Amino acid sequence: MNKPFLDKLRKIDPYVPGEQPKTANVIKLNANENPYPPAPGVTEVLRTFDAAKLAVYPDANAKALKTALAEREGLKPSQIFLGNGSDDVLALAFQSFFCSGEPILYPDITYSFYPVWCDLLRIPYETVPLDENFCINLRDYDKPNGGVILPNPNAPTGRALSLAEIEDLLQHNADCVVIIDEAYVDFGAESAISLIEKYENLLVVQTSSKSRSLAGMRIGYAFGSETLISTLEAVKNSYNSYTMDSLALAVGEASIRDEVYFRETCRKVAATRDRAADELRALGFEVTPSLTNFLFATHPKKAAPEIFSALREKGIFIRYFKLPRIDNHLRITVGTDEQMDALIAALKQIL
Amino acid sequence: MNKPFLDKLRKIDPYVPGEQPKTANVIKLNANENPYPPAPGVTEVLRTFDAAKLAVYPDANAKALKTALAEREGLKPSQIFLGNGSDDVLALAFQSFFCSGEPILYPDITYSFYPVWCDLLRIPYETVPLDENFCINLRDYDKPNGGVILPNPNAPTGRALSLAEIEDLLQHNADCVVIIDEAYVDFGAESAISLIEKYENLLVVQTSSKSRSLAGMRIGYAFGSETLISTLEAVKNSYNSYTMDSLALAVGEASIRDEVYFRETCRKVAATRDRAADELRALGFEVTPSLTNFLFATHPKKAAPEIFSALREKGIFIRYFKLPRIDNHLRITVGTDEQMDALIAALKQIL
Repeated sequence: MNKPFLDKLRKIDPYVPGEQPKTANVIKLNANENPYPPAPGVTEVLRTFDAAKLAVYPDANAKALKTALAEREGLKPSQIFLGNGSDDVLALAFQSFFCSGEPILYPDITYSFYPVWCDLLRIPYETVPLDENFCINLRDYDKPNGGVILPNPNAPTGRALSLAEIEDLLQHNADCVVIIDEAYVDFGAESAISLIEKYENLLVVQTSSKSRSLAGMRIGYAFGSETLISTLEAVKNSYNSYTMDSLALAVGEASIRDEVYFRETCRKVAATRDRAADELRALGFEVTPSLTNFLFATHPKKAAPEIFSALREKGIFIRYFKLPRIDNHLRITVGTDEQMDALIAALKQIL
Repeated sequence: MNKPFLDKLRKIDPYVPGEQPKTANVIKLNANENPYPPAPGVTEVLRTFDAAKLAVYPDANAKALKTALAEREGLKPSQIFLGNGSDDVLALAFQSFFCSGEPILYPDITYSFYPVWCDLLRIPYETVPLDENFCINLRDYDKPNGGVILPNPNAPTGRALSLAEIEDLLQHNADCVVIIDEAYVDFGAESAISLIEKYENLLVVQTSSKSRSLAGMRIGYAFGSETLISTLEAVKNSYNSYTMDSLALAVGEASIRDEVYFRETCRKVAATRDRAADELRALGFEVTPSLTNFLFATHPKKAAPEIFSALREKGIFIRYFKLPRIDNHLRITVGTDEQMDALIAALKQIL
């Protein structure tokens, strides 16, 4: 049948989100979610929010949440951009800053959305191989490019660069925008936010999805010079002036204002991570040093897909990526101590 | 100072969102918001939602809300797309369906975001003049094009086409995607959703911002053939798998499930609109027939910007567009009966 309107549609390979188990009683260690609830103030917001206020558009400038973030980081609200999760922030940043036509650079093993955005937005790119220990060699980024994006710590490896290394990268890449994607930074790595005043071409992106237990609420932020932030705002406002709903803004502010709860949650996750890493090593796993809320591991005697499937049958969901160089590795989100005990017990049976 | 990274940034004129009055005690008739609160079930959702569930990603398929909408409209969930407000849905639809390089068509007087998206996404367009009574002449759309988008009712005029006229448009535009933007349809016009089964190239877009009093919650939807919806899903998933947060999904479902409250709210707004239109006419205004929650009016003896400013001084905010053909018109959102009484009393003083 001849349907000319089909020729006018965007041709695209659908990106398929990761599996979300439907059944109850599973142990979900596959999406790098936080096993602890968000700050108590979040419940307070939900219990007291006047629903009648939802009839009115949200604050397009998000003053309250930007102010909370600015006070925490010692920045001005005009150095902060907010989005509907850090994926929204990153997609807008790709669109705003990677416009030169020159290829952008990022690691060969990294967040799987980067090539998706490049394809969607027709941004040329070049991947830079990690070394055999999954480390970034900064000198590989010393070449002309249209921009650089690195997760720090990197995913799914979990490895982090130091602040001095990030500054080295910036010193060698002054002629493009450098984006440091700090989705996992709160679990032990150093944030590059302190470099913003010095490097006008640096954008630091963070999220409330991992360390603040708010994956369900979609709250991401970027920190940068007013030059970068105002460009992001202009592009965002040309799509949709109101990407953040009023409840997300209020919930985000309540979370940011509770520093004590935040630190305690991150500390607990990091402690469980380090203990679980030791126990995995005791079972023969090689575990990449992690400063995130997940572990990246491989077993010399049993193939990763087999371990993945065996755990799945026991109701424990972890992540397996059938990708070059890491197709014998597993990514395991750090859950509660009880969840990790169940994981270790299940692995003892499987191995 | 030489800053080569600036050359890699997107050059864009910022779109500036409409004014949001900061002071209290104003009468806000400038953003087409609903003066009534959302359905009582929305408050119930906020009071009972378990904040711990926010630690987990939202349902990327949004099954519960899509099912509620599908049941209401007699469609399948696979014929429904959800977005972060109808602006998000429309921006993705422009990107998904207007890819031919041929100019798309829309009225010269219409929603101000259409040219912004065309510029951002580099989609060529041609505007089609409304007649002197702000009516659409469908025969003007009988020409080769890359797509058609019409708000029905149109904004800011308030005028609607009948369902038979929309079908006529579809019969003459089978070779492109036709988008009917029904942001205001619930206040009295006929929805084109009933034509979806017959016209695979029809996309109908609606929002919960106006008729469901949820502007603050950012919930928009599109209805169409599985061909169109699956294309929208693929493009959306390439940006951001989780555009709708878990609370927005739950709040949206609660609203859709309360048909009685919804109808009563729309009926009240329409009754106040018709009464206010009569009273404006009694003051000498020419008021365009409206099937929306706003009135479009001009006064033969007093210039629109003067009326706008005089009302503003009295704490009543309406909307004035300094645009060709409508720069002597005012757009007045329909508020409560009390708010409209205050407006009429203020206008009597001003005139």
